[in-house]
Amino acid sequence: MNCELISVGTEMLTGAIVNTNAQYLAEELSDMGIRVHRVTTVGDNPGRLEESLRAALTQSDLVILTGGLGPTQDDLTKETAAKVFGRALERHPELEAELLSWFEKRGFSMTENNRKQADIPEGAKILKNNNGTAPGILIQSGEGEDRKTVILLPGPPGEMKQMFEESVRPILKEASEEAVSSHYYHLTGIGESAVEDRILDLVNTQTNPTIATYAKPDQVLIRVTASAKKGESPEKLLEDYDIILKERFQDYIFCESRETLGEWVGNALIESGKSISSAESLTAGLVMATLAEVPGISASLQGGVVCYNNEMKEKLLGVSHETLRLYGAVSAETCREMAEKVRLLTGSDIGVATTGLAGPDAEEGKPVGLVYTAVSTGEQTFVEESRFRGSRNEIRMRTVNRVFRMIREHVFTEKLN
Amino acid sequence: MNCELISVGTEMLTGAIVNTNAQYLAEELSDMGIRVHRVTTVGDNPGRLEESLRAALTQSDLVILTGGLGPTQDDLTKETAAKVFGRALERHPELEAELLSWFEKRGFSMTENNRKQADIPEGAKILKNNNGTAPGILIQSGEGEDRKTVILLPGPPGEMKQMFEESVRPILKEASEEAVSSHYYHLTGIGESAVEDRILDLVNTQTNPTIATYAKPDQVLIRVTASAKKGESPEKLLEDYDIILKERFQDYIFCESRETLGEWVGNALIESGKSISSAESLTAGLVMATLAEVPGISASLQGGVVCYNNEMKEKLLGVSHETLRLYGAVSAETCREMAEKVRLLTGSDIGVATTGLAGPDAEEGKPVGLVYTAVSTGEQTFVEESRFRGSRNEIRMRTVNRVFRMIREHVFTEKLN
Repeated sequence: MNCELISVGTEMLTGAIVNTNAQYLAEELSDMGIRVHRVTTVGDNPGRLEESLRAALTQSDLVILTGGLGPTQDDLTKETAAKVFGRALERHPELEAELLSWFEKRGFSMTENNRKQADIPEGAKILKNNNGTAPGILIQSGEGEDRKTVILLPGPPGEMKQMFEESVRPILKEASEEAVSSHYYHLTGIGESAVEDRILDLVNTQTNPTIATYAKPDQVLIRVTASAKKGESPEKLLEDYDIILKERFQDYIFCESRETLGEWVGNALIESGKSISSAESLTAGLVMATLAEVPGISASLQGGVVCYNNEMKEKLLGVSHETLRLYGAVSAETCREMAEKVRLLTGSDIGVATTGLAGPDAEEGKPVGLVYTAVSTGEQTFVEESRFRGSRNEIRMRTVNRVFRMIREHVFTEKLN
Repeated sequence: MNCELISVGTEMLTGAIVNTNAQYLAEELSDMGIRVHRVTTVGDNPGRLEESLRAALTQSDLVILTGGLGPTQDDLTKETAAKVFGRALERHPELEAELLSWFEKRGFSMTENNRKQADIPEGAKILKNNNGTAPGILIQSGEGEDRKTVILLPGPPGEMKQMFEESVRPILKEASEEAVSSHYYHLTGIGESAVEDRILDLVNTQTNPTIATYAKPDQVLIRVTASAKKGESPEKLLEDYDIILKERFQDYIFCESRETLGEWVGNALIESGKSISSAESLTAGLVMATLAEVPGISASLQGGVVCYNNEMKEKLLGVSHETLRLYGAVSAETCREMAEKVRLLTGSDIGVATTGLAGPDAEEGKPVGLVYTAVSTGEQTFVEESRFRGSRNEIRMRTVNRVFRMIREHVFTEKLN
């Protein structure tokens, strides 16, 4: 099934917002084995939208539009789609009643222009919006190979995603003549280009399964997607690839799911019941803030200390004046002491620490990008020296992921095999 | 001048990466008064790329393509553009020599396929790449009103942005028959829809200047862009709007630049020489990590404490057991004590604190989204209660910006008038 996406909204053409809807849909659709061939972004301009929709329908069986379903005069996606399909708009009294109750519940009065959200092209299917007022719409025409499907989703990402998951995905799965399944390998300790080199033979000859790599700071995701006729299982194809990929990347795989390194570590901490604390210099709290994104982490994440200067390293953490004087703040010795002290101070099972130079200027005669990370388990303390490139933020993100990688290697070794 | 963008790369159609290049270019171009009418993303597929480029050229005077300039067989943007303009590719020996030296400097040997990066369509202008191997290319045809310009830029954002700034922006400025200038107003304490309501008259009648709003968590950016004939100044038009906007938003403007609230607070701290520390519960370090993004902040940002549970609030910070027992961790009383204690503990001029529930579950019989933020200046401690909606991350980002807003209001009052 060929698919195109059309994002509607002038705010994307002024750069006011990044089009994350297209990225989300592209990832979800390719996960289901549906290939996206083109993404078009147009403003709230019915002429250009009509032209783009007609062009997409000549090339693709499925077109998904996001945005332009709101109540204002600018919102013309529904009207344009109805025109392209030659359908009239019909007001649905039950939708009008739902809208009215939505506004009443929130103590607002419904304005006249909101009523137009109850207008649906004739013969179209209504997709419920559990997060807002604009319903989604599915319009189909033709049969068999000539069948064209257009799906209209609201622009706000929260509404769009929920509607995709609850309504669109089941419909597309049901309609598909294929069973599709994906397997993920999340790698760390190896760069994306090295990953690509090692699977070039698979990439160049891919038909089914397909294979794709996704690069993130200090981690690489490999996705393998296989399809089979409905009723048959694509798992056998995935198993063959599984053997090959594990042979080539065993040392680097930290999980076989879409979880990031931070999520993996957070969940491993929760499962094991181990508690953690952190002493952060250059990352200034980013290790803890990243772990805090994992729901349920509060049983494991104790807290810790941000010590952005030498005085705080002594005052809040008790790093010895001698260590700082002899080796400097950016040193393996200081980093080791930070991890050990924060573990003792908080009474945690694991203490981690970061110190280094994110730039823009070199300090203590040490270069920008020089970073130390440490993990203390009580029995042992491990320290790594890294030299990271990139902007201030990139250096700090790489540092955070390096800490997670060390936790994976030194604390959760047994989970890897 | 009408403009379209075409992003080339299969990795965007699988959702592997978000198309931030299009957002960057759209923002920079509209800042220069150039309107982007459509953004198209296609894969590494010369047929669809050719079709999209031809379609764009029928509608627009300027088309900017990003991606597909690399050395591999997949990279066909240059070949496709040359075909559309009916130009042959010519190998440039001076580019070939530069490529060779680029590889030698890095200790790599240049493979044969890299030589194709020295091929340029005849009559095209070469744009220097200071960050990588693929040069940019500018092709023009026609004269006067029929003139069409196509610009090819590399896909990696670092290379693309530098080339845009160093080569493309000056060329477009030079070619433009207008002088364009923008003025920014960054607001906090007012929602985007309320901002829009108050400037609806300006938005609905806009011709020159144009006006646009950009929503971010707890802050709204208004951009006013005016153009004038070359040699004349657009400033007068901006001044008229300046009076109107200050009248309508005086209480909410925290700066007149593109700076975010975090950058504004960070720079205000650096300028004033005031030091700051933070005690964070639900934000788990995000206040400090956000401030740490501002270059030069290390003189002001002392550090602080993350206390994700009650025990840490007592142990690391010395919040009294009585306060926690009587009012709970999520309370104005605890938040006040956290801000005061961290200020004293670190000896900072300002102490700030956050506590609240980011979800997913309610705790202490208190609802998700209930948040307390505090700012202690030594003379006084201010505490605010908020109820935020959204995901875990949204609630935490709003909390961080609420802290910054309180610092603006209570510490840097004088800077606002």
